[in-house]
Amino acid sequence: MSGQLQIDGPGLLARIQALGRIGALAGGGVCRLALSEEDRRGRDQLVAWMRELELEVSIDRIGNIVGTLAGRRDLAPVMMGSHIDTVATGGLYDGALGVLAGLEVVAALRRAGITPERPVQVAAFTNEEGSRFAPDMMGSLVYQGDLPLEAALDTVGIDGTSVRANLERIGYAGPAPVGVGRPHAYLELHVEQGPVLEHEGLEVGAVTGVQGICWTEFTVSGVSNHAGTTPMRLRHDAGAVFVEIARFVRTLTQRYGAGQLGTVGHCRLHPNLVNVIPAEAIFTVDLRNTDKLALDGAEAELLAFAAEAAAQEGVEITHRSLARFDPVAFAPALVDLVERKAQGLGRSVRRLPSGAGHDAQIMARLCPAAMIFVPSVGGLSHNPAEYTKDADLITGAQILLEALFDLSAA
Amino acid sequence: MSGQLQIDGPGLLARIQALGRIGALAGGGVCRLALSEEDRRGRDQLVAWMRELELEVSIDRIGNIVGTLAGRRDLAPVMMGSHIDTVATGGLYDGALGVLAGLEVVAALRRAGITPERPVQVAAFTNEEGSRFAPDMMGSLVYQGDLPLEAALDTVGIDGTSVRANLERIGYAGPAPVGVGRPHAYLELHVEQGPVLEHEGLEVGAVTGVQGICWTEFTVSGVSNHAGTTPMRLRHDAGAVFVEIARFVRTLTQRYGAGQLGTVGHCRLHPNLVNVIPAEAIFTVDLRNTDKLALDGAEAELLAFAAEAAAQEGVEITHRSLARFDPVAFAPALVDLVERKAQGLGRSVRRLPSGAGHDAQIMARLCPAAMIFVPSVGGLSHNPAEYTKDADLITGAQILLEALFDLSAA
Repeated sequence: MSGQLQIDGPGLLARIQALGRIGALAGGGVCRLALSEEDRRGRDQLVAWMRELELEVSIDRIGNIVGTLAGRRDLAPVMMGSHIDTVATGGLYDGALGVLAGLEVVAALRRAGITPERPVQVAAFTNEEGSRFAPDMMGSLVYQGDLPLEAALDTVGIDGTSVRANLERIGYAGPAPVGVGRPHAYLELHVEQGPVLEHEGLEVGAVTGVQGICWTEFTVSGVSNHAGTTPMRLRHDAGAVFVEIARFVRTLTQRYGAGQLGTVGHCRLHPNLVNVIPAEAIFTVDLRNTDKLALDGAEAELLAFAAEAAAQEGVEITHRSLARFDPVAFAPALVDLVERKAQGLGRSVRRLPSGAGHDAQIMARLCPAAMIFVPSVGGLSHNPAEYTKDADLITGAQILLEALFDLSAA
Repeated sequence: MSGQLQIDGPGLLARIQALGRIGALAGGGVCRLALSEEDRRGRDQLVAWMRELELEVSIDRIGNIVGTLAGRRDLAPVMMGSHIDTVATGGLYDGALGVLAGLEVVAALRRAGITPERPVQVAAFTNEEGSRFAPDMMGSLVYQGDLPLEAALDTVGIDGTSVRANLERIGYAGPAPVGVGRPHAYLELHVEQGPVLEHEGLEVGAVTGVQGICWTEFTVSGVSNHAGTTPMRLRHDAGAVFVEIARFVRTLTQRYGAGQLGTVGHCRLHPNLVNVIPAEAIFTVDLRNTDKLALDGAEAELLAFAAEAAAQEGVEITHRSLARFDPVAFAPALVDLVERKAQGLGRSVRRLPSGAGHDAQIMARLCPAAMIFVPSVGGLSHNPAEYTKDADLITGAQILLEALFDLSAA
């Protein structure tokens, strides 16, 4: 590849800052909830930039924005994408980076006078965050086909209004049919949103896939009683069973190795008084693993242990699944490509799974997909303090450019 | 003792039911909060009964009601007592039993034509429960001397009004000085409020003392982070430290033996979300033991473990004491007396400590004191479903009568 094919670093940073001013929060960060007025203004800016780059802009019926650079041949396109909606207290990079770097890739191709063999697309998917309308990754799910368009449009959000009404209100209920054409490949550049790269002093992550997720809510029902008059052996303490299970979650992650995550983030005791044995404990367990068999094993062990711990204390326990997603593996050839491009640029790189969900995991059902991660300072994300160093942003975009160039060449 | 000296069982039960109708809750139970209108009516009934028994009635400045049966000689009196205030959702027996059984003891002496050597007193102490005004055991504390009268009178309750104002309103701001004269002995009959006697199939408890109490609130401050992107080794999970410490409390009770109780009744995680590592955990530990050295040891071990668990996870931990009472030991000779009287009646009896607080533990600072427990069905108390079988109530009162008879004889 010629040295001319270079990302315009200042241009990328300027776009990130410009988009970040739309919905900017006092004191830092961004609130650009899906299909809000701020989202509309962000979309208008994106479409304007696509038009400046002479991309053919298509808005589909779920509001996904796709800008296409025609290729020399009528082949399946190579798509770069992510999202520009944010959580209520979001940062400048989550989502925006992948879309805006896509624009800079196109700009770099234009400057170099290169017309790729395959069409090249930049996509911004609707409502990736899911903060206002569930489920998250809505636009890519409809694009890919697993979420019916009508169901998505009928979705009512936290403010009682529908996706359909909001799309119409902001003028992004587009005319294009959703998900026509299967991309040749999909690439997504994103901030890591975790501390691994920074902690290991690395510049790039070649993302191998997305962890599987298993969320379980347990309800333990014991007997409330006086903490001073009830001997330990006569107790049916719902809180103590919660504690046993929560501790088991930690030991499970130790036994299953570094790929296994386990978190007890939520718990509620009743009556929750200093001198009353808890009658009820409701709590959640979040298990994640990139290995489906390991995740299934961890879940089965958790449920078995929970039943046994409850029986030993003489309390009832029930559980329900709050979420269950199998792990996603990205296309090995694309993961290799990302890793090679990082190494070719002299950057330190490691393979790692994504702990968070991304549009790429949905697109992976449709075509070969992969992601490039750049470090998040302090591992922070979904936070106004979210930050990735300028040099890392530009490195990520350069890797995206070079990988895209290879994939679009034939 | 002659067979003539017998409690009038039906009379006792009738008094319990009659007092229980004052402040009766729809659906069962009683609400007779200290110094409320219901408490006034209960006090009026009690005073009327005392006058029927020709007791000399004294109301002191904190509202304690003491009825005195003169003895043959001018000696220190033997006092029987408890309280007639209840918690907001109380039962018929907690407190009322000890006072009303005292009346029946006097009635039995009268019927038998016995005038004891020593004066005999029946006391109803103000605000034992502490549900409306803190601290609990207020009337006995002022009587005994550790709580100054003026401080008690100035206490403002949950409804913003003072003890003084309420005593005056209900007409029980008495003229008598508080706590004049040290009783020869103090006896209190009470329902167990725990499950031990029932669980062991026993009829009577000879109460050896009151457990010491150590309440500690811990605040763990960690780092909130994404449950999917934060490797286990990089976490500073406040919830996980809470879980370690709560589990340690259980193991502590196992190592310290049956006399050690430990309860984690309250916990609050922040932000308390399924997929966010807890940044903060606030929780309480309730430790109780009848042995002061053991309780001190358990507390010291708990604090040391908590500091170590926090250091290992890399989180901050602070703690503050919510309550700390040393154990109280009742007078061995009186505990023996209660046990002997129970055995003499052919009743099954065991020695046991009280897990709850009682006026007797305050009076024990002033004079030899002891308590008689009768079984609480299901261990329930502070609950409209509080219940003790009629036969057990009468047995308890008979033991009180016989013990009182011995103590008042010289």
